[in-house]
Amino acid sequence: MEQPLFVIDADKVASMAKDSGLSVLQLLPSLVKSAQKLARPPISKYHVGTVGLGSDGRIFLGGNLEFPGLPLHHSVHAEQFLITNAAINGETQLKFIAVSSAPCGHCRQFLQELRGAKEIKILITSTENGGDSEEDEVFRPISYFLPHRFGPDDLLDKDVPLLLEPHHNGLVLDNVNSNHTIHCNGNLNGGVHDLLKSAALEATNNSHSPYSGCPSGVALMDSEGKVYKGSYMESAAYNPSLGPVQAAVIAFVASGGGKYSSIVAAALVEKEGVAVQQEGTARLLLQSVSPKCDFRVFHCSSSVNCCKKPSS
Amino acid sequence: MEQPLFVIDADKVASMAKDSGLSVLQLLPSLVKSAQKLARPPISKYHVGTVGLGSDGRIFLGGNLEFPGLPLHHSVHAEQFLITNAAINGETQLKFIAVSSAPCGHCRQFLQELRGAKEIKILITSTENGGDSEEDEVFRPISYFLPHRFGPDDLLDKDVPLLLEPHHNGLVLDNVNSNHTIHCNGNLNGGVHDLLKSAALEATNNSHSPYSGCPSGVALMDSEGKVYKGSYMESAAYNPSLGPVQAAVIAFVASGGGKYSSIVAAALVEKEGVAVQQEGTARLLLQSVSPKCDFRVFHCSSSVNCCKKPSS
Ligand SMILES: [Zn+2]
Ligand SMILES: [Zn+2]
Repeated sequence: MEQPLFVIDADKVASMAKDSGLSVLQLLPSLVKSAQKLARPPISKYHVGTVGLGSDGRIFLGGNLEFPGLPLHHSVHAEQFLITNAAINGETQLKFIAVSSAPCGHCRQFLQELRGAKEIKILITSTENGGDSEEDEVFRPISYFLPHRFGPDDLLDKDVPLLLEPHHNGLVLDNVNSNHTIHCNGNLNGGVHDLLKSAALEATNNSHSPYSGCPSGVALMDSEGKVYKGSYMESAAYNPSLGPVQAAVIAFVASGGGKYSSIVAAALVEKEGVAVQQEGTARLLLQSVSPKCDFRVFHCSSSVNCCKKPSS
Repeated sequence: MEQPLFVIDADKVASMAKDSGLSVLQLLPSLVKSAQKLARPPISKYHVGTVGLGSDGRIFLGGNLEFPGLPLHHSVHAEQFLITNAAINGETQLKFIAVSSAPCGHCRQFLQELRGAKEIKILITSTENGGDSEEDEVFRPISYFLPHRFGPDDLLDKDVPLLLEPHHNGLVLDNVNSNHTIHCNGNLNGGVHDLLKSAALEATNNSHSPYSGCPSGVALMDSEGKVYKGSYMESAAYNPSLGPVQAAVIAFVASGGGKYSSIVAAALVEKEGVAVQQEGTARLLLQSVSPKCDFRVFHCSSSVNCCKKPSS
């Protein structure tokens, strides 16, 4: 079986460590260059790669994504890719992260959404800018990189789930749904739309939006019929939030997906008429990456029997 | 003459200091609550206020802005409002800033665009979260708040103008312009459109976009015929960039502007077919804040005799 590019399982990590004579923590910076090759930055040509260690010994990789023709806030930073990749694979903690460039403030803020963020350790491998590798290549806690942080603590009760923790938003689709299509793809039948709608609802139910209360999710389908889900992930500081199309595109790229133009259909599920709505922006991004993509929007509401904290 | 709310001139600052027995630096935190009242945060209801001291003794105020119905990346943070307010008023340096909450990572990153950013001193007035006012209310340099920064140094030559420094992008309007209108307002005559177009071009020529090379500018007109200009301001880290409509809305608010619905016309000037384009996103924001606003888009190019560094 071909080794997935963006996740390395724990057995493989152990054997890589054994073969190289490195500790698992030393493996992380050694893989950053591989992560950089996975980036898709057509605007900046600046490849950022990042590698994180999960709680169960798996290693996750991430790279930055940029989308020409739109404002730069559509960009996905490598650290956001990494977190989303971990989320897709059911990982709930990243305690050690190596990255090719100094994390920007936007990412240092986004990382605050993780439980115990202050203690996450980051190592910067870049030594091009006069850094001394022996001095600089150390793991430092995020509390060092973003002291006096503004974060979830400032706004949420302690028992609200944070990013990477299980979310069960208890949403159901509205009976009468708005239904907008950019381009109707004649090859798609009704079953496909039902499948995408269900997948997007599932993504919405996993969405992290404790600040606005406006969850959303997107499902994409490629020309082979594979489905990629993305959940909106909100930041306490608002602007660093990651949109649901971005999250689904990360899932597409992380699965080894090829050209964006192979994305043929997309569904967005969100609440109607609320404070944060993704529809217009989602359409802009989808039109940009895959102009012929069939895009439909469905609205949802909290179910009457909504149970935010299941007993499981 | 009524005292402008968002700028306090140097004479007034001196007399306020004298009357209160405070030093000018002590005045900054004392004005933060006034700045918070200027914020417009309908989503979070979380009023952030910030106060900065200019090089010529003027004091600038800023508050956060939020726009319901859109993704949160449209939000303007108080620190971004402050910088834009300083730019509007021809200020080139802010050395001391007081703010009501810990600046988020997004803002710490945006502030890196200023010359000598590392030495800008920030004081956080918030003591609600268990802070000790005597310990916490001190000015600390941004290098403390964002150590190991990623910033302009990593990407630009030293002589490229940074944010708040004069920009002369040398752009002229294309002869044949695209011209899109959302709603045509019958009360606007051709002269108004020429005025807005010229103002938007001026804003584009002042735009800070050294990373993408894609400047843009917006001009808004209110129902009284007053024009407000906003220049796109780019961040080395991409996502914290401030869009041109946001910048123009800041100019509108900072002038004491009332309801956004009094904005009746808008023009955007940008390059056509380039890597960063604001049109679709600008339209979303304008439709959201003033649905009846007449919106036109014009394209520009570098003039043949473009002179990036005028002798003046
Ligand atoms: Zn970043
Ligand atoms: Zn901020």
